Amino acid sequence: MVEQTEAEYRERVSTEQIIGRKRWTIDGSLSSLPSYFQPPPTLPAVQTTARYDVVRNISEVEQGSFGRAGLSHATLAGALLHGLKEVEAWYNTVAPGSGTPIHRHSCEEIFVVLKGSGTLYIAPSNPDQDHPGTPQEYPIFANSTFHVAGGVVHQVRNTNEHEDLQCIVAISKPPMKVFMYKDWFTPHNAAKMVFPMFWDERCYQTHPKKDEL
Amino acid sequence: MVEQTEAEYRERVSTEQIIGRKRWTIDGSLSSLPSYFQPPPTLPAVQTTARYDVVRNISEVEQGSFGRAGLSHATLAGALLHGLKEVEAWYNTVAPGSGTPIHRHSCEEIFVVLKGSGTLYIAPSNPDQDHPGTPQEYPIFANSTFHVAGGVVHQVRNTNEHEDLQCIVAISKPPMKVFMYKDWFTPHNAAKMVFPMFWDERCYQTHPKKDEL
Repeated sequence: MVEQTEAEYRERVSTEQIIGRKRWTIDGSLSSLPSYFQPPPTLPAVQTTARYDVVRNISEVEQGSFGRAGLSHATLAGALLHGLKEVEAWYNTVAPGSGTPIHRHSCEEIFVVLKGSGTLYIAPSNPDQDHPGTPQEYPIFANSTFHVAGGVVHQVRNTNEHEDLQCIVAISKPPMKVFMYKDWFTPHNAAKMVFPMFWDERCYQTHPKKDEL
Repeated sequence: MVEQTEAEYRERVSTEQIIGRKRWTIDGSLSSLPSYFQPPPTLPAVQTTARYDVVRNISEVEQGSFGRAGLSHATLAGALLHGLKEVEAWYNTVAPGSGTPIHRHSCEEIFVVLKGSGTLYIAPSNPDQDHPGTPQEYPIFANSTFHVAGGVVHQVRNTNEHEDLQCIVAISKPPMKVFMYKDWFTPHNAAKMVFPMFWDERCYQTHPKKDEL
């Protein structure tokens, strides 16, 4: 996982814009592309998914917290695991008191709440403000649905101390890249870019070392 | 809804290619564009969605069969109803013995089966064949997931005579346009294009007639 501030990210993008959005071909290789066009240099090539069942039992899909307390995530069908290019679906369980970071992403996202309840926080739309600002709060509940447009700063939390919150989530344009905020008053350009997502990291693996014998 | 064979569709596309993928500007109006670039002429402008709740109770989302026996469909979050551009989610219930047509679409599709069971039929991949051919069959069941890549001919049926089949479906690139096959031996170029989808038709409405008084 690579973290950088949005300011750092924008600086890179600006540099790219200055040179006319062309590929850097100083040494003629793909690795001379700006890093946001490809896996960061610390992350080798993606592990392609060689085999998976056409129909998968969700109970048997690998789930994990991926270092996030209170999270259980399973990618039901996705870019890195199954080769999808346009849409990805997750099965997420969030423990009481836990939730997503305050974050935004350019992709669209649809939630279907299967079980439990909680709160959706959405930043007000105010393009003149350099930070999200105090969010609006919406109760979410079993058998509810909502979506988040691209670029909207939001957070989903299990604010029900008695029950897990279970959701199916569909996103566009996988794999997801997010910008995370420390709080609702963090400037947009200080949000930290996180890519790949915690659960996508396992799909990037180092090339096996050559056997020295 | 407009139906045309793929041959007719391809003929239009070819004509468009011949003239260099330029807009037809014979009369200088947008309506002179080939019809596949816009709602068919019988369908006026899309009804934009003025208002919807941020969080919606799925039980209260409008559901309907839209003329398809054995189907109950609800668009949870979509292009025409909610302004999404990249992903759309449905809640579909299929009665015993019913199912989707044999069809294909260029978008990607992910299914999550919530209840019931049935069968997924997938055409073999054989680019040299002019028709789908006898499909492979896969049992689907509650708490299972599967996806269909763009362009793959498939069908999902409730083959359990005792129980409804309930699924959440996520698609990319909404609104969906499909090509439907009469059977697995229908030539690809005789598949009928259907657009808009049955449930999207209500989003296209005629302009209100002017009050003659």
